[in-house]
Amino acid sequence: MSIKPRLYRGMRDILPAKMLVRERLLSRVRETFELWGFAPFATPAIEYKEILAGKYGDMADRLIYSLEHKDGLALRYDLTVPLARAVAMLGSELPMPFKRYQIQEVWRAERAQPRQGRFREFLQCDVDTVGASSLVADAEILALSASLLLELGFVTAKTRLNHRELLRGLMEVSGFGKESEIEVCRIIDKLDKVGEDGVRKELGQAGYSQDSIESLMKIILREGEEPLDYVEAEFGTNARIARGIAELRRVMELAIDFGADRKSLRIDLSLSRGLDYYTGTIFESYVPEQPHIGSLTGGGRYDGLIGLFSGRGIPAVGITIGLDRIIAALEDAGRIDGTKSPTRVLVTLFDENLLRSSIEITRRLRANGVAAELYLEQKRLKKQFSYADSLGIPYVLIIGEDEVARSVYSLKDMATGKQRAVDFAELLKILSE
Amino acid sequence: MSIKPRLYRGMRDILPAKMLVRERLLSRVRETFELWGFAPFATPAIEYKEILAGKYGDMADRLIYSLEHKDGLALRYDLTVPLARAVAMLGSELPMPFKRYQIQEVWRAERAQPRQGRFREFLQCDVDTVGASSLVADAEILALSASLLLELGFVTAKTRLNHRELLRGLMEVSGFGKESEIEVCRIIDKLDKVGEDGVRKELGQAGYSQDSIESLMKIILREGEEPLDYVEAEFGTNARIARGIAELRRVMELAIDFGADRKSLRIDLSLSRGLDYYTGTIFESYVPEQPHIGSLTGGGRYDGLIGLFSGRGIPAVGITIGLDRIIAALEDAGRIDGTKSPTRVLVTLFDENLLRSSIEITRRLRANGVAAELYLEQKRLKKQFSYADSLGIPYVLIIGEDEVARSVYSLKDMATGKQRAVDFAELLKILSE
Repeated sequence: MSIKPRLYRGMRDILPAKMLVRERLLSRVRETFELWGFAPFATPAIEYKEILAGKYGDMADRLIYSLEHKDGLALRYDLTVPLARAVAMLGSELPMPFKRYQIQEVWRAERAQPRQGRFREFLQCDVDTVGASSLVADAEILALSASLLLELGFVTAKTRLNHRELLRGLMEVSGFGKESEIEVCRIIDKLDKVGEDGVRKELGQAGYSQDSIESLMKIILREGEEPLDYVEAEFGTNARIARGIAELRRVMELAIDFGADRKSLRIDLSLSRGLDYYTGTIFESYVPEQPHIGSLTGGGRYDGLIGLFSGRGIPAVGITIGLDRIIAALEDAGRIDGTKSPTRVLVTLFDENLLRSSIEITRRLRANGVAAELYLEQKRLKKQFSYADSLGIPYVLIIGEDEVARSVYSLKDMATGKQRAVDFAELLKILSE
Repeated sequence: MSIKPRLYRGMRDILPAKMLVRERLLSRVRETFELWGFAPFATPAIEYKEILAGKYGDMADRLIYSLEHKDGLALRYDLTVPLARAVAMLGSELPMPFKRYQIQEVWRAERAQPRQGRFREFLQCDVDTVGASSLVADAEILALSASLLLELGFVTAKTRLNHRELLRGLMEVSGFGKESEIEVCRIIDKLDKVGEDGVRKELGQAGYSQDSIESLMKIILREGEEPLDYVEAEFGTNARIARGIAELRRVMELAIDFGADRKSLRIDLSLSRGLDYYTGTIFESYVPEQPHIGSLTGGGRYDGLIGLFSGRGIPAVGITIGLDRIIAALEDAGRIDGTKSPTRVLVTLFDENLLRSSIEITRRLRANGVAAELYLEQKRLKKQFSYADSLGIPYVLIIGEDEVARSVYSLKDMATGKQRAVDFAELLKILSE
């Protein structure tokens, strides 16, 4: 009796065709992070539940996977809270500022939508600067995110920016109480999902006055070229609003110095970001032509989080790059080819007598840096060709008795179907192209 | 009130110094796997418990981490059982043979020994060839493992080989019953941990006769140059022993054709490998000078495992490379340097007026492929130097008013302490070296 092979919903196997794309993108992501002076770092998948709970918001807390364990263990939900825990634990062992990147999976018991690229396990690529309160750090991270998206080929990507203090100031002038700010942030964050009326309705259900709701919605949804000029003129005397405006202007200016394109940056007063821990600038990148993909990157400043663990406040700013979304966007735009194998050439296996010759040529190809695969069983040549074909391997090298006797090999180009006789030097030349 | 930052025993944060080594090793591992024609593949961390249970052995089953979840979920314990599950699920979608590599973490609730490099979360790098019964596949994987260890600098690494059928045949001729073979394999596997007498004792406690125990121990512990010749002469008429001997000889011969060094391969009849699912050749690599590190790689043939899920037998052979052990071995041998940052040059920040000039030069360095970091706060130059020093950043670029006015920069070599004036072209030349 066999066990039915199955996968828990929201989990997936990633096949070679997609993994090859993923690995290629990841090495560019790593390279860019290191070029900007960020160092790799990793934390474990398993954390104490008390470390994770209460940091993201009530909704998010329910999405954390717990382990069956007397000590209260859970799977990480993001890479930011574990970073904060690690920084607090490491204390003075860590030179500050600590600029780190971290590329690891996270788990969330969300509703899985595999067709929209939404899974319960997904890869996050985070960069954070810890221990710097300077807005230069915000600007650098913002510019890095824009630069990386360009590098990955998203030439039209835009980043929208807002500021938690500015947003909270706008709540204040609209008549919301201080104690309701986090809840209002969370509800506004659903704008893209439930629409304007949905947000109005949820705010109403939460008991806020229609006047406050309308006042706030009018400001954050206002269309117009220069939202900062508008709110400055209207509400610039509010200290939090004034601080938010000044910081956003400064961050944009410095991000452009760091290489971001001015046209790719846009103030969006309705941007709120779902997680509770943000305290200053917040940002999110998206591709205007692919609204259904959602945001490709998102982040902001969170000066209070590390203090929850260390007792003393340590400022921090960071961003998450959603690699799965990026791959979905590239796929969606038809920019992913179907290669299923890293192999450049398949070496055929004719019969037992020729096995060692086939191994020998495979070994020599590899020793010369050519990704080569030996067909492993003695099957008809047609079957070996069709294997190469099904994997998209570009060349097949035919090793027969004649070939071995003359040290000349028949190389078949699978795209054109043409076959030609080559010696080893020619072979290397063609396969290294 | 702050939350005490702490980590569950056996878990660890990996700091940049170690991560930089890890990333460097991993990219070589990936490159070698792809050079040999293996394609990347990934499975999720979370599997149904019933998929994992009963595949590794009773002891191992108890080490699986379960999730609090009504559907019965658990964390993967290795990469082989998930592969078997995936192959069974994908069925004919997967071209055969399926040569895949997989580099992911696994979790085991073992006794953690952080000082010996034993953690409850660790990275496995697996290569497997699925769907090929030919011993050419075993030989290729064996040679790949030897080649990779050489590539990573373990020039003295050795691989010991054995064969499950040969070992079971030896049990047969020693008087053990067929039903006890798995249990005896598991006990013999503890040889390195509990020693010869420990194994004798455990076998005795399990109720086997002293005669059988002594007979088996005498054969598998026999010192001598050619163990296969000896068992062939003594027990060659036993069908399982004969098959094991023939297969081992063939695999060694072909592995040498694939490039393995004959002197690095050694038959060891006492090698058993702990996991239940092996059916043919088994192998393990180690460094003779570093016996305390244990095995660096291990694997073998498991022709029955996939059939547990698919109902029809699909042969497979594979190996796991323990990256954490490899790093421990390199550290132990003093072959890991202490670089804590990918940054090549730290650009100083003098004052607010010079901020944009410092950003500008940082941006230009990055655009030219130099990993550059801008110091993010306005602090004394001494502090900025000591930051570079603490991270092992090799150069510091001093941007002062004079420098900006003349477009000439002072570059300090942190190793020699020497400072020199350079223009941008010279700067690039030095930093790109």
